[in-house]
Amino acid sequence: MNKGAQTRAAILDHAVAIAGVHGLAGMSIARLAGVTGMSKSGLFGHFGSKAALQRAVLETAAEQLARSVLGPAQREPTGEARLRSLFSRWLAWIDADERPGGCPLLFASIELAERPGELRDFLVDHQEIWIDRIRQMCQKAVAEGNFREGLDTRQFAFEFHGIGLGFNFARRFLADSRALTHANTALDRLIAAAS
Amino acid sequence: MNKGAQTRAAILDHAVAIAGVHGLAGMSIARLAGVTGMSKSGLFGHFGSKAALQRAVLETAAEQLARSVLGPAQREPTGEARLRSLFSRWLAWIDADERPGGCPLLFASIELAERPGELRDFLVDHQEIWIDRIRQMCQKAVAEGNFREGLDTRQFAFEFHGIGLGFNFARRFLADSRALTHANTALDRLIAAAS
Repeated sequence: MNKGAQTRAAILDHAVAIAGVHGLAGMSIARLAGVTGMSKSGLFGHFGSKAALQRAVLETAAEQLARSVLGPAQREPTGEARLRSLFSRWLAWIDADERPGGCPLLFASIELAERPGELRDFLVDHQEIWIDRIRQMCQKAVAEGNFREGLDTRQFAFEFHGIGLGFNFARRFLADSRALTHANTALDRLIAAAS
Repeated sequence: MNKGAQTRAAILDHAVAIAGVHGLAGMSIARLAGVTGMSKSGLFGHFGSKAALQRAVLETAAEQLARSVLGPAQREPTGEARLRSLFSRWLAWIDADERPGGCPLLFASIELAERPGELRDFLVDHQEIWIDRIRQMCQKAVAEGNFREGLDTRQFAFEFHGIGLGFNFARRFLADSRALTHANTALDRLIAAAS
């Protein structure tokens, strides 16, 4: 990685953290200049526009999620093991100390709900693929005979995802110390019902 | 209601709708002036500060939710009937056309996650009470013998709430036409497991 690419990557790490706390709209160039110590014009030089910076933030967060959550889970041998690994890694990602605001992608999905455009399209694609990966892991567990034949795998993916959103809310907003136990119990119940 | 109170209420209806799309941070006085046709100084005259306006928006949304969702559900005779009524009314509230951005309280709970202060305290209190109402309805169903003895009612409330968040995500962000069916199926499964 050359120096320009290193600087860009370092800026994006800060930008992802800011977007988790303040959202894409609140991730101003001024705020980013403050935490990186760079000038606004220097930041513009790396990204060209606020829209391009926002897009790069979503791409960076999506790559981090793929690297630390989805990738390792995909390497588990069975469908159920993949689902359990994905779940525990996803919860750890949501609750990670290095991103004080939680998952910037979940924040952005609320922010962009009613804002058609390229950013929203990118994030919808990403989230649809994410939910489809859950469905595929579930389908693999069916094929392995671990989950029952005829299981509605889309329904399973919807409920799996909802438990994660419930954890994000209980942990990040309510600071509920029982959030992790509740989420794990809910997952066990979902998997038992599918088996 | 005198004229001043009527004007204030009309402004707040617009402000709640804006907060659902743009969040509390994006509900600027300038944006509100644009949709109400009032001057910025006129708006300040009604609320005194942006912080007071934000607080009034959260209070108004919470009152609307109490009036159209919680109140009618509380008047159902049994715990299970209350839960089912609360659920269907909550989903309708999330999906209502008059609030194009969805529930402003859910948006604010993401926005305020890492912003300590009076606004966050108000919203945390409100959401804790909301989740406790779900728990109480569940407890009533246990007392009536409809749900099983020893049921973990906090766990039930966590899962009930997660299904609603999953619906909000699937409906509002992904525009998934199956969201309502998935949410209703998940609720049926949750209630069946509690019975």
